[in-house]
Amino acid sequence: MLIKNISVLDVIGGKILEHQDIYIDGQYIKKIGENLNIEDDRVLDGENKLAVPGFVNAHTHLGMSLFRNYADDMELMEWLGEKIWPIEAKLNPEDVYIGSLMSMAEMIKSGATTFCDMYFPIEPVYRAMEEIGIRGAITRGMMDVEDGSISIREHKEGYEKYNGALDGRVTLFPGPHAIYTSSTEYLKEVIEVAKEYGGRINIHLSETETEVRDSLEKYNMTPIEYVNSLGLLELPTVAAHCVHITDEEIEIVKDKEFYPVYNPSSNLKLASGFTPVKKLLANGLKVCLGTDGSSSNNNQNMLEEIHIASIVNKAVEMDPKAVKAIEVLRMATINGAEALNINAGAIEEGRLADISIFDLNSLNFTPKNNLISALCYSASSEDIKTVIIDGKIVLEDRKFVNIDEDKLIKDVNETMNDLISR
Amino acid sequence: MLIKNISVLDVIGGKILEHQDIYIDGQYIKKIGENLNIEDDRVLDGENKLAVPGFVNAHTHLGMSLFRNYADDMELMEWLGEKIWPIEAKLNPEDVYIGSLMSMAEMIKSGATTFCDMYFPIEPVYRAMEEIGIRGAITRGMMDVEDGSISIREHKEGYEKYNGALDGRVTLFPGPHAIYTSSTEYLKEVIEVAKEYGGRINIHLSETETEVRDSLEKYNMTPIEYVNSLGLLELPTVAAHCVHITDEEIEIVKDKEFYPVYNPSSNLKLASGFTPVKKLLANGLKVCLGTDGSSSNNNQNMLEEIHIASIVNKAVEMDPKAVKAIEVLRMATINGAEALNINAGAIEEGRLADISIFDLNSLNFTPKNNLISALCYSASSEDIKTVIIDGKIVLEDRKFVNIDEDKLIKDVNETMNDLISR
Repeated sequence: MLIKNISVLDVIGGKILEHQDIYIDGQYIKKIGENLNIEDDRVLDGENKLAVPGFVNAHTHLGMSLFRNYADDMELMEWLGEKIWPIEAKLNPEDVYIGSLMSMAEMIKSGATTFCDMYFPIEPVYRAMEEIGIRGAITRGMMDVEDGSISIREHKEGYEKYNGALDGRVTLFPGPHAIYTSSTEYLKEVIEVAKEYGGRINIHLSETETEVRDSLEKYNMTPIEYVNSLGLLELPTVAAHCVHITDEEIEIVKDKEFYPVYNPSSNLKLASGFTPVKKLLANGLKVCLGTDGSSSNNNQNMLEEIHIASIVNKAVEMDPKAVKAIEVLRMATINGAEALNINAGAIEEGRLADISIFDLNSLNFTPKNNLISALCYSASSEDIKTVIIDGKIVLEDRKFVNIDEDKLIKDVNETMNDLISR
Repeated sequence: MLIKNISVLDVIGGKILEHQDIYIDGQYIKKIGENLNIEDDRVLDGENKLAVPGFVNAHTHLGMSLFRNYADDMELMEWLGEKIWPIEAKLNPEDVYIGSLMSMAEMIKSGATTFCDMYFPIEPVYRAMEEIGIRGAITRGMMDVEDGSISIREHKEGYEKYNGALDGRVTLFPGPHAIYTSSTEYLKEVIEVAKEYGGRINIHLSETETEVRDSLEKYNMTPIEYVNSLGLLELPTVAAHCVHITDEEIEIVKDKEFYPVYNPSSNLKLASGFTPVKKLLANGLKVCLGTDGSSSNNNQNMLEEIHIASIVNKAVEMDPKAVKAIEVLRMATINGAEALNINAGAIEEGRLADISIFDLNSLNFTPKNNLISALCYSASSEDIKTVIIDGKIVLEDRKFVNIDEDKLIKDVNETMNDLISR
């Protein structure tokens, strides 16, 4: 595939390259430059369009989109105890398949090409990925509130079966839910499993004040100090939230492969607090960006997260220069790709061809003063017309190539109605 | 016009009415009910659609959309002094016309049917309103940093000429910019002008810490105490921002016709701070919602403001029940209508027919768990297909009825290029 004469976001360099041709060979970006002397059967006209690295949604719970707008404006424990857990207990694999497919569809329509999911079971997520054509890390949620061996077994089996599948689009690593849902012994076991099955770990860390207080009471350590004491941080760690990360914890993780995932909408809506993004970045941490699940966001729109991430932190810091547009765009692309150990996240020769194409003939990009600002502060997902994942077009003129969106909407509504009455 | 079988947001009652017919006669909603026995030439099928009162964007600077994405991630005074003021000085009426038209177009595409503008001059804004078909209050920006009599004269002339024009779609009242750009004598003069020409006042109040500090130094009063001492608050007041409003000030304004306008994106992006929305609402104040100008937002998307308004205040209050979805929807509709003294802001018999129609056959509204939550937390402006203002369709299937969007985009880009090189 050859994209001709397009503007390109160079997310690492922090600039826009004009009039570029992008030649995609198979899964990879083979060549980028002006007026490439290459011919291809499939040519996309890039005039007045902007190529952006596909966003990496580094933290979500795909299946929970079924519970979107189901219970809002509630206290956290009331929300979980009275609404989410009772209905979650009734979920079957087909429900998870349809909920996951909807989350993936939403992500693609907002420019995300890769996710990091934590939910269960594994097979329906894999099936939805195969169908829609997205890239992602499936991290099987693990806890030993009840029998914790089931999820470990499922992860091992899933890893053997699916890791590296779909031309490498699928990866798996363990997803121990949190320190307050796992015993110390169980976490130690999961760490050993991770060393052999996936090589990294996805975990919620320091999301709420309650979590920190309980950790101090129980272990006399803050959450990150505690998991560090278990050896967990010797593995690359995708650490969802880190809202209440302390200066001492930053010292522990700053030289490790530790990727805090900032989930602005969810942290705000659940009143978890304000993640110290500026401080994390200043300490060299590669902060990633995520939507969290649709039951606490309530959407999977990465472009909206980018906007909110940038503006909220300026007010938190009382500094309009804090957490600049390009910094958030890096959080949403290259940092997330590195956290998940995938060779994407930037439009560069040799990287995987995961690209969103924005139409600049839009009010949101007018006037064309600064396209990096526009992406962060004024663009809308409606401007994303084409999405390419692994070298293949999955969204064209906002229509899915591989799935029927109307049928998906119908299926989700039927599933939720059935779930409530079940 | 007859809309058949549509879901309706009853924003005052805080509920969704199903299977309603809405009969619009001229400018007004004449009748609402199930299976109305009315025939009309023009029938809209409302099945699987949601009628929402047109949003009232209670604070913006329409013409400033030209400077969108022109200068971001900067200190406020550096932004104003080095970037905004020098280019603003070159603006001519045609620039303001084209910038205003773009802001109006963006608003309509995000469901807003009414604005409160503060800018200059008046005629180009009126002309853009006539062209696109929107409703709005034009408040001529006033200050006496230089000769303040010009803006007063322009307001009086504009009022005589345009107030009540376009079937009442246009209203005018004075817009003294702020206490730090007006002398005491000048503000007193503007108050007298307002009594005769418009009956209310639009002013920035307590936007930044600097404003409050300077006011205390200069007048030994906080900004709202100061304008109250001048008699300004005897008039209904549309008070943009109120980020740093004090408890004492709340006591002063709570029983007056005082409408604080919350501009979440702008307050966050400029690092002005966090407006105490929950406290204002708890004191019975009818808080309104605005986008502010596109140079500090950087868009005119009211739906995005609704979302951000709700979630940010939950984190500020550390309370997930703070500033609920329905409260923000009221801020964006009925409160704004009351602030501007227009008989719109709710879908009720006898009110002006300003209505946005959302397509529920969208991933963002799926599953259909709670449409009020969906509007606030997951809807996207892309879901707004039809917008009716003053009983007339101005947007149909996201295409403008009265203007050519492609031409507008071209014109804005040409205007900005010309402005920079001028």
